[in-house]
Amino acid sequence: MPDSTIIIGVIGAGSCTADVSGGAQKVGELIAGRGAMLVCGGLGGVMESAAKGAFSNGGVTIGILPGDNKDDRSPYISIPIVTDMGHARNVIIAQTADGLIAIEGGSGTLSEIAISMKLGKPVVSIGKWSQMEGVIAAQTPEEAVEKVFKLIG
Amino acid sequence: MPDSTIIIGVIGAGSCTADVSGGAQKVGELIAGRGAMLVCGGLGGVMESAAKGAFSNGGVTIGILPGDNKDDRSPYISIPIVTDMGHARNVIIAQTADGLIAIEGGSGTLSEIAISMKLGKPVVSIGKWSQMEGVIAAQTPEEAVEKVFKLIG
Amino acid sequence: MPDSTIIIGVIGAGSCTADVSGGAQKVGELIAGRGAMLVCGGLGGVMESAAKGAFSNGGVTIGILPGDNKDDRSPYISIPIVTDMGHARNVIIAQTADGLIAIEGGSGTLSEIAISMKLGKPVVSIGKWSQMEGVIAAQTPEEAVEKVFKLIG
Amino acid sequence: MPDSTIIIGVIGAGSCTADVSGGAQKVGELIAGRGAMLVCGGLGGVMESAAKGAFSNGGVTIGILPGDNKDDRSPYISIPIVTDMGHARNVIIAQTADGLIAIEGGSGTLSEIAISMKLGKPVVSIGKWSQMEGVIAAQTPEEAVEKVFKLIG
Repeated sequence: MPDSTIIIGVIGAGSCTADVSGGAQKVGELIAGRGAMLVCGGLGGVMESAAKGAFSNGGVTIGILPGDNKDDRSPYISIPIVTDMGHARNVIIAQTADGLIAIEGGSGTLSEIAISMKLGKPVVSIGKWSQMEGVIAAQTPEEAVEKVFKLIG
Repeated sequence: MPDSTIIIGVIGAGSCTADVSGGAQKVGELIAGRGAMLVCGGLGGVMESAAKGAFSNGGVTIGILPGDNKDDRSPYISIPIVTDMGHARNVIIAQTADGLIAIEGGSGTLSEIAISMKLGKPVVSIGKWSQMEGVIAAQTPEEAVEKVFKLIG
Repeated sequence: MPDSTIIIGVIGAGSCTADVSGGAQKVGELIAGRGAMLVCGGLGGVMESAAKGAFSNGGVTIGILPGDNKDDRSPYISIPIVTDMGHARNVIIAQTADGLIAIEGGSGTLSEIAISMKLGKPVVSIGKWSQMEGVIAAQTPEEAVEKVFKLIG
Repeated sequence: MPDSTIIIGVIGAGSCTADVSGGAQKVGELIAGRGAMLVCGGLGGVMESAAKGAFSNGGVTIGILPGDNKDDRSPYISIPIVTDMGHARNVIIAQTADGLIAIEGGSGTLSEIAISMKLGKPVVSIGKWSQMEGVIAAQTPEEAVEKVFKLIG
């Protein structure tokens, strides 16, 4: 059981390099280390790496799945939510998270950043999205997690 | 952390008598006692009573909320999922559950039973819905939980 | 262009006998004859027959599609709405319609009836659902259309 | 009734200057002039101006509404689709459109552009979004409409 109901979203590329994966895993580990839950899209790449980091550190990992089969989730997802709503599940991730960390990714990730900003949720990014207006830049996983927790206050 | 990713849905009246509440709480307690998670609509009545039973017994309780504010959840929900999708969240409950137990309720509950049957998920009911075609009848919370676990195999 | 923005939902079996199909087509024809639009799930069976009746009588036919491809619609749908939300599209049909006519069908149709009743929309049925509590019974397509228009006032 | 089932999405600011409004209205007028339907979010600003242009030119205007009341739509919407799904309705706009024209707007519009690109739909923009990677720039309403029709082939 989580210590709190703080939920941090981690959004990003569905497949990624080892470097990006390592950063995402560290982000997940740090989120769980603070007793918060992690929510993501439940699939591969950044989602899986972040979930792995949180799960391995004793955290709760929520996966909001686009399809209709809970077996499609990454093995590091402890709470599979099955939506069968395709990309509309991105909105549920943004609604469910108190703050989000974006790591690489393409148009799907951009849609999640945009909805999160529309909802007034803080979005911190390492790398690609950090120069985007409205996104808070961080240089390291540690700084990203530090900033998102400070912003959700 | 849950022992498994078996998830049982409990659906029913948004407000209810003490008797119905007691049965729902027992159902929740038994679900958690078997190491499964509980998913419900996250609000009051049968949802809250079942969540209370599971939560008090160390269980994980997932609330799929219809609105856009996680603070609307019952205090016994450990995992609030914020959809802002109104009644369409009923479909997510049915998709996420492996099997469901229906306890009283009206048209909203009926829509959840119907979607669950459409998806081929077993629906067990104590009371009101137990004579409905396709629903499996049970006389007690113990029998309902026993039957739903047997049916999800 | 429609004469009004009255929208009548026709819900029912995804495949049906010639008899049921004939009744559904007559219902669609009569809806269009009154200058109202028809909304349905956009696929086969009762949906297609009702859309055919309305379309052939100069009506506007809205199909709320569950998948992600507008080409999956019946040829009698003039306005394809692509949701990629599976059964959650049933809720959009109920929300969009001012009143509904249910003709045969199974659990999917039942979920649409239930959501419509939850929203306080009148549901008229010929046949199978007409004995259900809260559903208004009609004996013929003419009576069903007459009743639904009277009830939406 | 539309001449075809080509549907062009117009997305943008929920409130806007007279200049932007004039451009959006011209875009709507040209879309209807080509016999295509227009889909938008059904509310004010760019959505209403584009709908007004299309509606006034005899076009079909589809409004995918975020709330649960069809009376919230702009008066120039001929086909109100009621979703009660908040920002998730943005995904339905992207799914329903064959191609889109983006005119100003903020995070909500950005989410629609992102989902449309994710789905592989062409997005043309006048002004603000035209320098964004993946978006096709146009200088005038005429050029925007010309380009989107060419791209949907």
